[in-house]
Amino acid sequence: MASTAGRSRVARTRVIAVRDGRAHERADGLAAEEPLEIRAAGPGQEPVRVAVTMRTPGHDFELAAGFLATEGLVAPGDVAAVAYCEDLGAQLYNVVTVRTRGPFDLGAAERNFFAGSSCGICGKAALEAVAVRCEPLLDDATAGSATLLALPDALRAGQRVFVRTGGLHAAGLFDTGGRLLLLREDVGRHNAVDKVVGTLALDGGDGAGRILLVSGRLSFEIVQKAAVARVPILCAVSAPSSLAVETAEALGVTAVGFLRPGGFNIYSHPERVDA
Amino acid sequence: MASTAGRSRVARTRVIAVRDGRAHERADGLAAEEPLEIRAAGPGQEPVRVAVTMRTPGHDFELAAGFLATEGLVAPGDVAAVAYCEDLGAQLYNVVTVRTRGPFDLGAAERNFFAGSSCGICGKAALEAVAVRCEPLLDDATAGSATLLALPDALRAGQRVFVRTGGLHAAGLFDTGGRLLLLREDVGRHNAVDKVVGTLALDGGDGAGRILLVSGRLSFEIVQKAAVARVPILCAVSAPSSLAVETAEALGVTAVGFLRPGGFNIYSHPERVDA
Repeated sequence: MASTAGRSRVARTRVIAVRDGRAHERADGLAAEEPLEIRAAGPGQEPVRVAVTMRTPGHDFELAAGFLATEGLVAPGDVAAVAYCEDLGAQLYNVVTVRTRGPFDLGAAERNFFAGSSCGICGKAALEAVAVRCEPLLDDATAGSATLLALPDALRAGQRVFVRTGGLHAAGLFDTGGRLLLLREDVGRHNAVDKVVGTLALDGGDGAGRILLVSGRLSFEIVQKAAVARVPILCAVSAPSSLAVETAEALGVTAVGFLRPGGFNIYSHPERVDA
Repeated sequence: MASTAGRSRVARTRVIAVRDGRAHERADGLAAEEPLEIRAAGPGQEPVRVAVTMRTPGHDFELAAGFLATEGLVAPGDVAAVAYCEDLGAQLYNVVTVRTRGPFDLGAAERNFFAGSSCGICGKAALEAVAVRCEPLLDDATAGSATLLALPDALRAGQRVFVRTGGLHAAGLFDTGGRLLLLREDVGRHNAVDKVVGTLALDGGDGAGRILLVSGRLSFEIVQKAAVARVPILCAVSAPSSLAVETAEALGVTAVGFLRPGGFNIYSHPERVDA
């Protein structure tokens, strides 16, 4: 189910570069951004539109499967097939349909998220909605400080599109020895994580025993996605938010932030880090 | 219609800091992240949920008004009132209702976005959907290189929450002389822009003749929001995407990227920059 066909991840452009007060025109590369419509359907059901995300083309099937899994809409093992939409004989590369083995219910996740609140919602309700579909992790993986400190360089070294555009987020999956297993890039941070999780899901696996590193900040949604994918150690180059830390604490995820040369901060479940 | 009441933008936490191989526990500040439900209703209508966004509390009314304006759901002058939801006598600070002067139609924007496409969507359709509700800018504002190069330091100097957490995006509105008029911070880049635009809209104004600087990348959605708010010069510290540049070109917005000490790149409408 490969889906890198046909679409470029780098667009060529002309740019006026101003350096030290002097302007000159030159060629440049831009990270490609295109909308992707994600549809889903069970056996005998008409596909329904679940979401439209702005993404960098490439690994579209993995993105769609990962999005549905990490948002709690489709169990990872419930994906039967993924395909681009075909209309009048032409493949449309910005529409992906995920076929599930069981019936697909779009309302389930939203009802879940809003169930616990009377009039409104809050961080606690959001956290509880994730917790409902995600047992806390009891993963006994551990990693050493030196291993963690080496991850950002390994991620950056693998970012082929970033090198040409300076404009992409990345998510990298590592083993606890620090070996890069999988790297995905996207203009959207969430999409990069969904592509990693979706790649695992389509292979029938998950993130147990692994380390996930993201190039930006740790938001609630990134922690949610990592927890649903069973990743025990989640690292970020930048800062976590308050709700990201609360969610990581509650779901048994080790959250590491500001992972940069010389040090890092551990915000939850430090028992997995040999400092 | 101030809405900074009651909610802290910085959460306190304990963290294990690992530096040069040594671990010690210390107090730390985290950027607050909470969901905000945005509702809208016209006269005599029941409020409907339009979106839930994860945001840093503060300037919630401005965020809601700016979101509805920049997504093309409510004309800026059509906001009659903004209020927190009241339920059983208690204000719920994570639910905001925007009352419009005319009838509110949630389906309009989505129908607009999908109208031009047969089976799917593409960047061209997304751009055209924005163009429908946004005349190209003919703003004759100009700014000099030295002025632009001074903006990032001015933005950073004004980021009060960032200083305490290291984890927030910012959007700053400047005049063409480089004076900071308005600064908003948020865990979400889009939210920071919506808060700026919403502040202008609630005052009956827009971004004509101004410069908007964002702390991260330039995505399609950021350009869309700036164009709808009539901002002629849009700058970013990081890279633009392909669709961001196409949209800026089509809508008459000057897009500047990689605005950093020593230089920057101009991607569209360079006539507004005295390089």
